[in-house]
Amino acid sequence: MSEKLVGSCIFGQSGGPTSVINASAYGVIKTALEAEEITKVYGASHGIVGVLNDELFVMDEEDPEELRYLLHTPSSELGSCRYKMKDPEVDDTDYKRILEVFKKYNVRYFFYNGGNDSMDTCNKISRYMKSVGYECRVMGVPKTIDNDLYGTDHCPGFASAAKYIATSCMEINKDARVYDNKMIVIVEIMGRHAGWLAASAALATAYGSGPDLIYLPECDFDMDRFLADVDELYRKNGKVFVAVSEGIHYADGSFVSEAKTSATDGFGHAQLGGLAAMLAEIVKNHTGAKVRGIEFSLLQRCGAHVASATDVDEAFNAGKVAVEKAVAGETGYMVAFERQMTDGKYSCAYRLLPLESVANYEKKVPMEWINDAHNGLKEEFISYVLPLIQGEANVPKVDSLPRYAKLKKVLAK
Amino acid sequence: MSEKLVGSCIFGQSGGPTSVINASAYGVIKTALEAEEITKVYGASHGIVGVLNDELFVMDEEDPEELRYLLHTPSSELGSCRYKMKDPEVDDTDYKRILEVFKKYNVRYFFYNGGNDSMDTCNKISRYMKSVGYECRVMGVPKTIDNDLYGTDHCPGFASAAKYIATSCMEINKDARVYDNKMIVIVEIMGRHAGWLAASAALATAYGSGPDLIYLPECDFDMDRFLADVDELYRKNGKVFVAVSEGIHYADGSFVSEAKTSATDGFGHAQLGGLAAMLAEIVKNHTGAKVRGIEFSLLQRCGAHVASATDVDEAFNAGKVAVEKAVAGETGYMVAFERQMTDGKYSCAYRLLPLESVANYEKKVPMEWINDAHNGLKEEFISYVLPLIQGEANVPKVDSLPRYAKLKKVLAK
Repeated sequence: MSEKLVGSCIFGQSGGPTSVINASAYGVIKTALEAEEITKVYGASHGIVGVLNDELFVMDEEDPEELRYLLHTPSSELGSCRYKMKDPEVDDTDYKRILEVFKKYNVRYFFYNGGNDSMDTCNKISRYMKSVGYECRVMGVPKTIDNDLYGTDHCPGFASAAKYIATSCMEINKDARVYDNKMIVIVEIMGRHAGWLAASAALATAYGSGPDLIYLPECDFDMDRFLADVDELYRKNGKVFVAVSEGIHYADGSFVSEAKTSATDGFGHAQLGGLAAMLAEIVKNHTGAKVRGIEFSLLQRCGAHVASATDVDEAFNAGKVAVEKAVAGETGYMVAFERQMTDGKYSCAYRLLPLESVANYEKKVPMEWINDAHNGLKEEFISYVLPLIQGEANVPKVDSLPRYAKLKKVLAK
Repeated sequence: MSEKLVGSCIFGQSGGPTSVINASAYGVIKTALEAEEITKVYGASHGIVGVLNDELFVMDEEDPEELRYLLHTPSSELGSCRYKMKDPEVDDTDYKRILEVFKKYNVRYFFYNGGNDSMDTCNKISRYMKSVGYECRVMGVPKTIDNDLYGTDHCPGFASAAKYIATSCMEINKDARVYDNKMIVIVEIMGRHAGWLAASAALATAYGSGPDLIYLPECDFDMDRFLADVDELYRKNGKVFVAVSEGIHYADGSFVSEAKTSATDGFGHAQLGGLAAMLAEIVKNHTGAKVRGIEFSLLQRCGAHVASATDVDEAFNAGKVAVEKAVAGETGYMVAFERQMTDGKYSCAYRLLPLESVANYEKKVPMEWINDAHNGLKEEFISYVLPLIQGEANVPKVDSLPRYAKLKKVLAK
């Protein structure tokens, strides 16, 4: 056992929101409030920016029953940020300021919840505190709907977004086939570099009501082949349902969504809508069909009403384990998920992964899970994602509408 | 009591799909299968078009347990159509064909589920059958997310769409306020002529997490006033959440969504996305803010996973009552809903409304429920809509994904 370290803790949320990042917050806050080594629990307003600005909310002042509502409150209740830290070796201004704030509140534990960049932030702070001899245990709590964090089987937030996407695709497929006419639907799904979310639309197909074609950023996009795929199904069935990742790109690396107006390419007009609207226009011109582009937009990452109970539980546990391990003496790690299958039954084990091994790497959908035509997913992907979306989140409601956490957010002085 | 009329029945679905139109289908089909006067139950493929084409599915051939899944299957499972019938006095070709099919199958009951146009179709068929002396009882079953049917307190399908919109707005509001930066979100909601659905976004606001501004087609839209509204809140709060009905229009009646590119109006680019994308561009140019346009698109009308249990029940009952009343001798009516409030508790009574009194009229949001600034709703609207969205639909699931009805659809010969 490592020496007992007594002091306060800061918890922060970073990067794009998810349906369950607040479940991780609750895991950290509840466990920290209960830990005798932790004297005070602060929540940073807008992540590391709140630390730099000395804007910290005192979690000890919150009603414990109210905090429980965080389990089902989407987005980042303490506020998030997209603040890239410089290397402390290059410019240590921010780090000196963080140290100042840490000293002011006797902060000995720092928990940071986020994706790739946040793990990088965690890692840099951990390194800096060591280098200046300030004892502070730093733990990363993973989060990203993109599911692209390295070294963990999956990330909290992904499964709930996947479930939202699968459910919505099943419904759209029903809707889009209702008329006795020809129709093409194109949905645009988040995922700039990794196609995990767009791939999740394959769940809808596996359960009988989903896209016919799915395109991921893991494969180079070929507009001619895409149009040929759509055209073939359109001629055969009269109805085509396509899902595309926002990050699909040509072989030269340029995003399809960034294609510019050109007199020669025939794509026409400047873009007001996103990729779905643009592809809808191209497909309409090519096939003459009625085409509808649909963008899931923010809905997919904040759809807590259809969250996966498995995801909520695991997100909570990720926060809980981070605190427990830090109190037990660990520092410089991210909590990672390890898939365990026993007699075909899924469970999740929690492991610690050195922060430097996870920061700044991206995990993509394995090519062997994508079909040979690069327009659909294989059974291996379904087996991977299915256990993660299980269970209903049972969102607390008032008058049949979601009841979210209402925190007092008392500022520390 | 009227004379007992023995024969088969046809049921058809028409117009845009909803989350609960199949619940009405189940109400009609189950009740008709159980009625001793009704010898055979046919479902028309794609509404009246299926009657004209003699494409009828034999519902007696379906597994009764499987039919139950219709309660939670979105869209129109038998297929829908948008077919406008001519007046029989002007051109009776279609009516002669319908009579031919009715005679072939000894059809004595016709149930048609839809909105304004469908009630018009019902009415014309009813009149024609009377005029040629063919005894057939015709009943309309209401349906429309737009909630614009005259003579009924509300329409099946509306409440579930309203609940989807309110829930999604609550989530979007949480998501859109997460960063410590300025941001404007504009959501586009269905409703070409009546603003009931866009108004439902006010539920989210009433429950603490919704739009700041809501614009309906009931009021003339003034772009300058809209920009001033947004600007004022933007300067004050840094965040603005706007909901607009797709049907907002200028004082001259022209739809805002149809505004054309013009060198002088500064609106820029041709339109690929819809109204939300267009307004986002205008607001961005005006305020300099980061603006995100979101279109709920098909999602709002097929979001059965978050349907209102009240809506599902009432949709089922609308179908059931139509059959019961027809068997009891009534014809030429639409089933209408009457709101009953007893000691503050809502219940729904079912009344019969002559088809000619409902067809081709449109019910709009009362002006006295809209605030004086024409950018929000009053408490009266909340009181109206709140009872309708109550209760969770408990969608049957397999592996945590919706399980829809799988019908055999055996064609009648």
